[in-house]
Formats: sequence, structure tokens, C-alpha cells
Amino acid sequence: MSHDDQLAAKGIGRRGFINTAALASLAGVVACTEKPAESAAAAPAAPAAGGHAAPAGVHPKPGELDSYYGLWSGGHTGDVRVLGLPSGREIHRIPVFNPDALVGWGITNESKKVMGTKANGDLRYTVADTHHVHASYKDGNYDGRYAWVNDKINGRMARIRLDYFVCDKITEIPNIQGFHGIFPDKADPVDPKINYTTRVFAGAEFSIPLPNNGKDAGKAEAYRSLFTCVDAETMEVRWQALIDGNCDLVATSYDGKLAATNQYNTEMGAVYADMMSAERDACAFFNIARIEEAVKAGKSKTYGDSKVPVVDCTRASNKDPKTALVGYVSVPKNPHGVNASPDGKYFICAGKLSPTGTVIELAKVLDWFDGKMEKLDDAIVAEVELGLGPLHTAFDGRGNAYTTLFLDSQVVKWNIEKAIAFHKGDKNAKYVVDRVDLSYQPGHLNASQSETKAADGKWLAIGCKFSKDRFLPVGPLHPENEQLVDISGDKMTLVADHPVRGEPHDFIIFKRDLLKPKQVYELDDFPLATKDPAQGGIKREGNKVTVRLTSQAPAFSMTEIKLKKGDNVTLILTNLDKVEDLTHGFAIPKYNVNFIVNPQETASVSFVADKPGIFWAYCTHFCHALHLEMRSRIIVEG
Amino acid sequence: MSHDDQLAAKGIGRRGFINTAALASLAGVVACTEKPAESAAAAPAAPAAGGHAAPAGVHPKPGELDSYYGLWSGGHTGDVRVLGLPSGREIHRIPVFNPDALVGWGITNESKKVMGTKANGDLRYTVADTHHVHASYKDGNYDGRYAWVNDKINGRMARIRLDYFVCDKITEIPNIQGFHGIFPDKADPVDPKINYTTRVFAGAEFSIPLPNNGKDAGKAEAYRSLFTCVDAETMEVRWQALIDGNCDLVATSYDGKLAATNQYNTEMGAVYADMMSAERDACAFFNIARIEEAVKAGKSKTYGDSKVPVVDCTRASNKDPKTALVGYVSVPKNPHGVNASPDGKYFICAGKLSPTGTVIELAKVLDWFDGKMEKLDDAIVAEVELGLGPLHTAFDGRGNAYTTLFLDSQVVKWNIEKAIAFHKGDKNAKYVVDRVDLSYQPGHLNASQSETKAADGKWLAIGCKFSKDRFLPVGPLHPENEQLVDISGDKMTLVADHPVRGEPHDFIIFKRDLLKPKQVYELDDFPLATKDPAQGGIKREGNKVTVRLTSQAPAFSMTEIKLKKGDNVTLILTNLDKVEDLTHGFAIPKYNVNFIVNPQETASVSFVADKPGIFWAYCTHFCHALHLEMRSRIIVEG
Repeated sequence: MSHDDQLAAKGIGRRGFINTAALASLAGVVACTEKPAESAAAAPAAPAAGGHAAPAGVHPKPGELDSYYGLWSGGHTGDVRVLGLPSGREIHRIPVFNPDALVGWGITNESKKVMGTKANGDLRYTVADTHHVHASYKDGNYDGRYAWVNDKINGRMARIRLDYFVCDKITEIPNIQGFHGIFPDKADPVDPKINYTTRVFAGAEFSIPLPNNGKDAGKAEAYRSLFTCVDAETMEVRWQALIDGNCDLVATSYDGKLAATNQYNTEMGAVYADMMSAERDACAFFNIARIEEAVKAGKSKTYGDSKVPVVDCTRASNKDPKTALVGYVSVPKNPHGVNASPDGKYFICAGKLSPTGTVIELAKVLDWFDGKMEKLDDAIVAEVELGLGPLHTAFDGRGNAYTTLFLDSQVVKWNIEKAIAFHKGDKNAKYVVDRVDLSYQPGHLNASQSETKAADGKWLAIGCKFSKDRFLPVGPLHPENEQLVDISGDKMTLVADHPVRGEPHDFIIFKRDLLKPKQVYELDDFPLATKDPAQGGIKREGNKVTVRLTSQAPAFSMTEIKLKKGDNVTLILTNLDKVEDLTHGFAIPKYNVNFIVNPQETASVSFVADKPGIFWAYCTHFCHALHLEMRSRIIVEG
Repeated sequence: MSHDDQLAAKGIGRRGFINTAALASLAGVVACTEKPAESAAAAPAAPAAGGHAAPAGVHPKPGELDSYYGLWSGGHTGDVRVLGLPSGREIHRIPVFNPDALVGWGITNESKKVMGTKANGDLRYTVADTHHVHASYKDGNYDGRYAWVNDKINGRMARIRLDYFVCDKITEIPNIQGFHGIFPDKADPVDPKINYTTRVFAGAEFSIPLPNNGKDAGKAEAYRSLFTCVDAETMEVRWQALIDGNCDLVATSYDGKLAATNQYNTEMGAVYADMMSAERDACAFFNIARIEEAVKAGKSKTYGDSKVPVVDCTRASNKDPKTALVGYVSVPKNPHGVNASPDGKYFICAGKLSPTGTVIELAKVLDWFDGKMEKLDDAIVAEVELGLGPLHTAFDGRGNAYTTLFLDSQVVKWNIEKAIAFHKGDKNAKYVVDRVDLSYQPGHLNASQSETKAADGKWLAIGCKFSKDRFLPVGPLHPENEQLVDISGDKMTLVADHPVRGEPHDFIIFKRDLLKPKQVYELDDFPLATKDPAQGGIKREGNKVTVRLTSQAPAFSMTEIKLKKGDNVTLILTNLDKVEDLTHGFAIPKYNVNFIVNPQETASVSFVADKPGIFWAYCTHFCHALHLEMRSRIIVEG
């Protein structure tokens, strides 16, 4: 019995079922509840829930590799997940903002340095909320160098090295709260030789008094949001921009000239009723070259202890387009999502509380900045009805856009040029191509290569926020449901449900040959490496003890490590095994130590030997038939 | 091109390839390297790596549910993972020993109480190493009440409630290190009415001086291991048994009379050369009824600060079978794994460094305890060659056993009764039925319902320790490869590769109708619940502040929470939403607070309001179209 049949048997239709989610209270606030202008030719929603037989290639045979990588933000697990597509198999989790007991992230001295510590050496934060992961570009496609991910809770940006799939830098951005949108640039706005990513932009969602010292809590006018630019290489904050309203998502143009953020709270309200009062909000476009000229010219200020230059991007200070650093394009009611089409021509904002998609032509935005167009809103070349609760848009490289409809629990496929024609007045332009029902309440979606010039229109993944009945029940906390849709044909075909641990939010999907990962580390990349077991051993200076240890399956270089109670110990472990996949672990019972060393990697931990006794340090990562026997006896003399 | 063909093209055969893993150093220590006695009828190893088209049912269509649950131990991620089988989809991770930033495990006061804290309120441990997960029994099958999992690093046992899929108790076992094997009993040894689990047994792998206070480090004879019994309901340690040698895995009989642990280090060596010196080690059988009589009679001692009674199960004190608490059956060289056949008749130990499987008949062990059989080793009814590096054994309920061969990278299917006949002298008994190549180096395996009387011989999952080339490369840390084999026919068929994050070790698979999870909590189960938003608010006693908050999508009950710098705050959040899957999160920027509340759940956090300013607490778990707008402004006055 199909899912819909099951619901029918229970006497509830699909719409009734999805509305048992807490959506009832929203009905009154949706600006426009008419059904959108639909193509007469468009098929009714496909009966997706019953499922289709998966086409060839969706489920690789044993030993077959996936054809696409997916980088998934981990939500409040604070990590980045690496999936193979189309199988949806999770191949890796990259620990980023939060401790990870598998690799010893937050345990080793090296990871603690990346994560940031308090004065007492404890981690500064152990919670995070990642939303968006995006990768570095060259010539409009991913170049396999870096990915970046945000932490909304604590306003941090992290960088992932895509050669080793590790996080190497984390930057806490000053003067902001609710860092949500993030996007790297794709080229330099001025220098055409720099046809690759050198900046990463960050949007702050929550407005706070500046500086945020508890003094101006009651002054509504003191609350502001900043848009931030981080250097892609140094990971230092280059500049910030004071804006009107807030920042949500971020998009960047292929020519490097424009970055934009949609704004769902131009009202700058503190409670949601206030945040919804305006019928139109905005998408703010930043003129990067002009902002950086202003910074260079010293036309900036600073807040509190921060040394970061802040330029003025408020409406009041940017009335003249010819000198404006920013332009605000109006977009209907609490828009969510701004996405750049792969042809480089448009940014598309979704209405969230308006059933519309707004298409903004970038050439016209540049015309406005050049004084060639009077009203910035004339850059809006289409504003068409798509369905209820539009959030995010992906692309297939064939002129079609795919927008998630949160309230309708659908994705709608629509043709951009036909939408423009419809908006211009051609009411016969049938811009809606297809719809597919989802399970349930989709947020982000992304298509293979969608956010590059190489969008290939093969697969579409959709992050459904509720899975409800789609997987075996596992108690109150449900997985989310990442659904996979084949978009290679005219009609969309739902081919798989992939449960994921909450809550990934957003992801990118790209061809596997864009990455060239390294499977074994370089010994020389680690200054503390012990290159020969003979160089290892224990060095003592008073109660400061350094233990240099190596691992080669199935043994550590020292079978016994003698310490005295009260010693301040730093233990440095180098894995001398060179074979791919031959990782060792090192745990010390009762001392809260466990970490791994991958082939040719060196890592260290520091601890006080405060408990006398015998402690069998052992290899925690299965390495060999004699793995269980791989131990080193630590003796702490009482 | 198949995987094997690819290897052939590179000029290396499959064996050569797998031996690039660090196995070379083992060749010299394997006791017996002859190829095992093979059935003439047995097929050569199936060319598995090239993959087969998956049979119907392996990949559920969208909306179709899996037919089996899998409970997977999380290795050093310290959690328990819930998979759907046969799809291999991970539906849930249950945080257990380590903090989990998604749910706020280790952040909320409720979870910290389960996990255990130091005097200063910090978590006692943030690392763990889980190996084995097993569930409670009734009438020889899982009854869906509990599962248990071990932490090898810190000697802890945890219990999972299988109604809500949460960990509710963790016990740190005294006097041990390297808690490895764990198994619940299946019945009471004396009272036939107790046909369900009331005890959980734990084996300690590492021998330590007793008590372990740093005094007897040099005295080899002071080093001992204990076998432990924990009460399944109270989770308190009932008793411990001092043994000769160490403990590895644990098995229990269906009649409740016997528990056993295999011993790979009867030599009690400290380095692996010593641990391998004996040609035969042992499997120790505990007579549970006699041990508990001894405890009741006060025939026990205690160690150090522990109050747990310890009985004497050394060889020297248990020479008379009629009074013995324990019997040691000899098993070849460093055995790994002891598994109970579903007919209740046999325990099977695998040789690890011997290419053999040893079949021990339980009725004969009981005969020995009853004085009816002179030599305990006469309980060995078969000891047959299986292949190189045998580790663990699963069953299909049709008389066949499936044993992983770590060095051969295979699973061998063999018939138990034919092995017994072969051992008796019938050299025509063809006990090896089939072999299948794995990728690569399998450790644990388990078949659907294998460890119950309802073993159904449908699916076999195998935890391969190395995945090498089986998935897209993701840097030095590779996933492990859980391979799925269809065992419903005479021949085994490899049907899927499932990557898993390291390193799961062990798992159980059972029919979905054995569990009846609850999807929504009961408000009354939480003493701190705020049942009506009107009962919420801020209560202040000096600088002790209690905030009682509720959530109902898309809002928290308080839009503003005013605090003073230095306040000791306890914030209690009740999720009043009742709809399945409607979870909310609550994060406070810069205060290191994030946790979730599932429908009708209450959770609390405590913190000192030490940073003045505005902090937008917000919902971190997507709940509603106005999720982004769901906030509460915390004002900490400076």
C-alpha cells in the first residue's frame, strides 16, 4: 500500500496530514493565499509518496563509486558531512565547531588551537549551529581548495581544507549575532586575473546594540546588523558594513562585482509580529569594489574592542547611486533565500510569506550603480507566483529554476525566461513546468553543480525538515528526510529518501573529479613529528614531561611509560604507518584522552598525571589482527 | 571494470592488495597457516568486489520502510546508532557516553546527571569507546525494553531505553580496565518464571593491580582481571569474579545457567609477544547460580573503596567441578569471539591466531559442573579449520554458522553438525558450505535475529575495518565498510556496501515489529515541566534566578528575559507542542547553550550570566515557516 493510500485508509488526505505539523498558526499571516498562476500544461502534483523504482545508477552496486560529492552542513552537530551522491551514503564527517570524540577534535592540542580556548585551556565553545557550506571557486566552478561553513550561535566562520577534509581555521566575527548566510566570491571585482575566490561574505541575522555591552538594551534604534567580508586565505575579517534591516542568506555574482543578502526583517522588529508588518522587505546588493575603496580611503569606523573597519551601508548614506556602496531592491514579505543563476544573469529571491519568486537582473543592478537606471526596483524582471512558502532555488543549467515550497511541501520547476515573459505581460507564458510532492516541508535544496557555471541538471537533493512516517520510528527525535529527485528529464522523479541526523540545512553537490583528496599525510607537515622510533622516549624537566611516541601496527614504540603523580605531561604521537586507511587511536583510561592519528600524522595531548596507578593506553582504531594487543602501559607512581 | 579487474590491471591480485594493509608482520605469528580442510563441493570465493545487482527489497522505494532495525555501537564516537536494514540507512544516533551538540547531551542538567560530573559540575568524561550493543531478552527473543553498550576506555556500562531511544543510566564499574565484552542474560538460572533479562555481564580485558593505586606496578602477579555482573534494572554492580587470564567477549546461555568469556591472554602478558606465547588460551564458563549462592553466603572480598563483593573464580580455587564457580575450556591461540547458537546448544569460539572454530556443547559443560564428565575439554565437540584470522560467528537458524576471517577478508559459511561429524572422524563431512570475499578485513558480523531463538537467516551484515577504495576518497580518515550479504539461499550474495563512521565494532539486527517506540513524550514524566505558559516566568531569589519557559511553534512563551550580570540562572524549557516530529531547539549565543526539546519534553540548563549585553536566544531546530523569527531576547544588564 502506498503512503498516500495508507493515509487515505486512515481517512486523512495528504494535505490534512502535513498540516498536522504546526502550520495552522501561519495561515493567517500568509500575505497571499491564492493559488499561483499555473501553466495549463503543467501536470498535477506527482503522487510521489508511494515511491518509484529507482533508475539505474541511484544505488551503486557494491564496489561502485558515487559520481558526485555532497558537502552537507551538519546543523547543530557543528560538523560538515561528506556524502556520496546519488547513493546518499555518508562517507565522512568533518569535525569543525564542536568536539568530536572519534578523532579527538577538542582533545588534541592541535585541534584545540583551531577551535579556540579560554584562559584555562578549556574549549571556548562546545555548541554550534552550522547552516550553509560553500566551496571555493575558480572560473565559475569549484576548484577543490576550500569549503566554508558558518556557526550561527557564536558568529564563527570555519574553513575546511578539501585536500585532507579537515578544518584548519575558525574565525569569530565581531559585532554580530546570528551569523546565517555565507558565500565565497567567485572573482575579484576589479582584477580580472583573480578569477577565483579570495573573499567570503557573511550575513548577520540578529540586530544588536553596537557595541553590545548591556547599556542600550532598551533603545530600538541602537540595534543594527552588519554584513561582513572575511579574507579567504588569512581568514581575517577584512571589513564590515553597517546596514538597515537584517541579513539572511548571501549570494555572489560570477563577475565578483556584487554580493547580496536577502532581508526578512527590514522592520528590525524584535518579535515576530513586528518582523512581519511590512508587505515588502528587500535584497541588499553590495558594490564590493566601492566598499573596498571606501575602506582604503579610511571612510570607516570601529565598534568596541574590534579593529575591523565598518563602512556605512545604510539607506540614508547611500542615496546617490553613483557613489552608493549598497542598493536595496524590494522583495515581497520576509523573503528567504537568494540564489545566483548559473548563467550569471540573475539572483532569485523567494518570498517565504509571499507565494512569489522575484528575479533580479544583475546587469540592471550594475546599471543603477552606474547611474544608467533611475529606480533600482526596475532590476526586478520577474515576480511570479510559485506556491505557498517558497524558500530556496536551484538550477539545472537549462534555464529552469527549482524552488522549494515549504507550506505546499513541494518543489516547483519553473522556467526563468518564461517567468520574465509572463511578468512582462505575456499571460500565455507557461512558466511552471512541473511540481513534485515532498515528505515533508522542504527547506534548502540544491542540484548537482547548481551554484556553478557547470550546472548539469542531473540530480536535485531537497532537505525536508520533517520525516514523520518515512522511516522506522526511533522515538521522539525524528531524522530529517533528504529526498533525491532525478531532474534529467522534463518531469521530476522522486527516487530516494535519505534520512539524515538533524539538521543539515544546506549542501552543495559537485562532480567527483573536481576533488583530488590526499589519502596519507606528509610527515614533514607536522613540526612535532617523531620520524624514527629511536628519536622517541621520555624527556623530563622537573615535573614537565614530554613523551614522544610512534605507532606502527600492531605496536606503539614504548611498551611502558613511567610518570610521577603531578607531572605535567605532553604526549606526542606520530603514526609511522604509511598504508592508506591505517589509522591508529590512542586512549588513556580515566584520563579522558582519546584521539586518532592517520597515516603519517602527528598529534599531541597534554594532561596532568593526577591519578596514581596503572593505565593501559591502547589503540582504539582497529588496525591489525593484533589490534587488541596493541597497548602501552602507563605507570603513574603514587 | 570490476574491482578485481582493476587490481589485475595494476598487476596486483586481490590477496596482494589486501596485504598492503599492515598484516605482513603477522604472517610469522599465525600458528597454523595451512589452508583449512575445505569441502570439495564448496565453490571458490565469489568474485564479490565487482558487485551484484541488488535483489528486490535491498533499496526501499521512497516512502517504504525497512523491515529490520539495526542497533550499531558507535565505537569512539561513544553513541549508539539506529539503522534501518536492509537499506543501511542511519535513522538515529543515540548519544550515550560523549556529549552530543545536536540534542544538548552533556549541556542539559538532565543529561549531565546521567553522564556523571566532577565536583565542579564539568563532565567526568568526554571520550569513550563503545564496542558492543545488546538488547534485553524475553523467551529467547528481544523484548524491546532495553539495550546496553560498553565504554572500554573508562569501564562504563550504559543502558538505552528502547521506547524513547535514549540513554537513561550509566554505571562505572570498579576495579577494572578495558571493559570489552558485554551480554545480558536471557533467563534466570534458578527461577523459571524469570524468562527475561535481569543481569548484564561485563568482561574486563586489561589486568591491573588490585587495588590500582600505583603501588604494585612492578608485581606481575598482582595484575588481575574481573568478570562483572550488573543488575539490569537498577544498573548497580551485583558482584564481580576474580579470574585467571583476561576477558574478551561475553556470551550467555538461553537457560540462564551459564555465562562465558573468551580469553586471549591467559598468559597475562603485558606486551603482545608475551600475550601470544601459549598455543591454547581459554573460554571461561561461569556457573551463575553457584556464584550468586557464594555471594549470598558471604564468600567474597572487596577491593579498595569498592563495596562490590568479589568471588574467587581462579583455577586454583575451583578444582572440584561439583563446587566450582567457573570452568576453563581450552581454545586455540588468542581466540576472539564467543557466540551462542540459536538452538541453545553451543557456544562457538574463533581462533584469531589459529585458523579454527571451536564448538563447545553447553549440556556437556553442565555435565562437568554436575560431576558427570571428568575433563571439561570434552565439552569441545568440534574444532575445525575455517580460514585465516577467524573472529566472530553469526547464525541463520538453519544449522549454519558464518564466521569472519580477518586475514582472508572473507566470511565462511559452515554447517555446525557437519563440523561436529568431521571432528568425530567423518572426514567426508563437508562442513564448509560457502565463502564470500569482503572488502576488507572483517571484524564483527551479525545476521538478522542471529542472537535469538528466532534467527531467520535473511541478512548478514559484516563490519569491515578497512574500506580503502570502496567509496569516494575523503582524505586520510576512511569510513569503515559495513557490507550486506543476502544469506537466504545456499550461496551468499554480497548486495551492498554501507560506509559508516568509525568505528562501530558490533551490532544487532532484529525485526521491526519487536519495537514499539513512543514518538511523543509524556508531559507528566518531567517533574520540572511547565504545563501552561501562564505558569512560566522569572523567579528571583537573590542572584539565584529560575526561568520557566515554554515553546509552541513559532514562539517561546517569553519574548524577553531580563537578567543581571552575575546571576546564577537555571532555565527550564518545556515544549508544549504535541505534534510528532515537532522538536524545538534553544541556543544562547556566546553562552555555550544549545539543546533541543522534543514534543512534550522538558529540559533545563544552568549558567552564570557573566557577560552583559543582548543575546538573542533562538530556536535551532527547524519547526515552522516562521522558525527564523522564533526568538527570545535575553538582556544581561551590565
